[in-house]
Amino acid sequence: MTSPRGKLYLVPNTLDFGCALGSEPDLQDVLPLGVIRIAARLGHWVAENAKTTRAFLKRVDAVVPLAQPVQALSIVELPRAQKGAQKVAPPNLAPLLAAALQGHDIGLISEAGLPAVADPGAALVQAAHELGIEVVALPGPSSLLLALAASGLHGQSFAFIGYLPVDAAERSARIRELEALSRRHGHTQLMIETPYRNEALLAALLATLNDATKLSVSCGLTLANGFTRSGSVAQWKAKPSGLPADVPAVFSLLVT
Amino acid sequence: MTSPRGKLYLVPNTLDFGCALGSEPDLQDVLPLGVIRIAARLGHWVAENAKTTRAFLKRVDAVVPLAQPVQALSIVELPRAQKGAQKVAPPNLAPLLAAALQGHDIGLISEAGLPAVADPGAALVQAAHELGIEVVALPGPSSLLLALAASGLHGQSFAFIGYLPVDAAERSARIRELEALSRRHGHTQLMIETPYRNEALLAALLATLNDATKLSVSCGLTLANGFTRSGSVAQWKAKPSGLPADVPAVFSLLVT
Repeated sequence: MTSPRGKLYLVPNTLDFGCALGSEPDLQDVLPLGVIRIAARLGHWVAENAKTTRAFLKRVDAVVPLAQPVQALSIVELPRAQKGAQKVAPPNLAPLLAAALQGHDIGLISEAGLPAVADPGAALVQAAHELGIEVVALPGPSSLLLALAASGLHGQSFAFIGYLPVDAAERSARIRELEALSRRHGHTQLMIETPYRNEALLAALLATLNDATKLSVSCGLTLANGFTRSGSVAQWKAKPSGLPADVPAVFSLLVT
Repeated sequence: MTSPRGKLYLVPNTLDFGCALGSEPDLQDVLPLGVIRIAARLGHWVAENAKTTRAFLKRVDAVVPLAQPVQALSIVELPRAQKGAQKVAPPNLAPLLAAALQGHDIGLISEAGLPAVADPGAALVQAAHELGIEVVALPGPSSLLLALAASGLHGQSFAFIGYLPVDAAERSARIRELEALSRRHGHTQLMIETPYRNEALLAALLATLNDATKLSVSCGLTLANGFTRSGSVAQWKAKPSGLPADVPAVFSLLVT
């Protein structure tokens, strides 16, 4: 007889990863209590980063006491993959799911937002499906969707394309390509950047896009000083504004 | 002197719109307490549907008492636009934002999930930006992102394309086009369907896609009986399964 299988819960993290201490929102401002309760009872975790997971669980514990002390939890890190890489041959992840086959629920968590979206974890989710383990994604903040909603750009069809090339010429070529794709498909195009390159990406977008193209930038979503600015490239140029270099940003463009 | 402006809050709704009574999750299972608190104090609403907004606010009131009775709130409906329409000339929405210009915060809410994403509201958000009204998107469940995370398909780049054509021949042609786009760009392609057409869309996908293409379907996300099934088209064909006709579903495909 086989024991009933555990589930793989995709546990959303907050969006304040790497942000200044003290600027984090209260956990209950960004995560549903029901999600915090599930996180508090899980004994097995697969994480992008064990240290940030322990920090997350301490915030959970302050709202709903953990079923076991953090030190007693099993927290295994995902194999590292290059962020933004298009395709990487996946290692065998089945061993990370052994606890679920033994009947224990497992939490998958990344450093910020939903795991497996613009973040590692998809390969583990795929492995879970292959093993017949039920996958449950729990609701929480997604910077991509919050940015899209706050942009006022077309939300009926959109594409997220990850990171742009770092090389200036390649980046400009990619921006022109994205603008052409937006024109052809009517998609809003969303992209992200490492915070210290926020300014460089904004400058490249303003230098490359047509004046009539709509551009929106959301910085520090869910943080106290977060903001979204949205307007035509011409409006951005007429009233230049800087971007912080220490909080994550999501950039969106749309040709209307 | 002008008074300080109010903000436009994008308030997420639950994902149980139209689902059987009694199957709804507890509000605190899907929305952060901080979001419920903000919703409880807002006196001005712009809504996809006033009736469902009042129902939502009654659920809010059960967790955090409303600052004013529901009957005393201003709830104005957005002008109706055809769902899934690519481009519609927007009416003048500035009058709906008058309260914010007078210093009152306004909530924008749709019937399910985040407003302005795969739902009406983007034009109002755009109008807010044009009027210099701060826009704040509040975290909550998004069926698109939850489905993408739970699919295990590529989450580093993806496109949401809304609804497929209803006509069978047009729908098949569009499915072939999406498969080709997924192959070319490495995008996961996400789409939604009206629940009573879930089965028809699944049948069309299985009949049209290549056997090696990955297909994922998430039904009833955040509901007690919700599930995600993910595998190759060949695996779906080898073990057919029906889809409920009364809960929303998100379909995802990826050519690997």
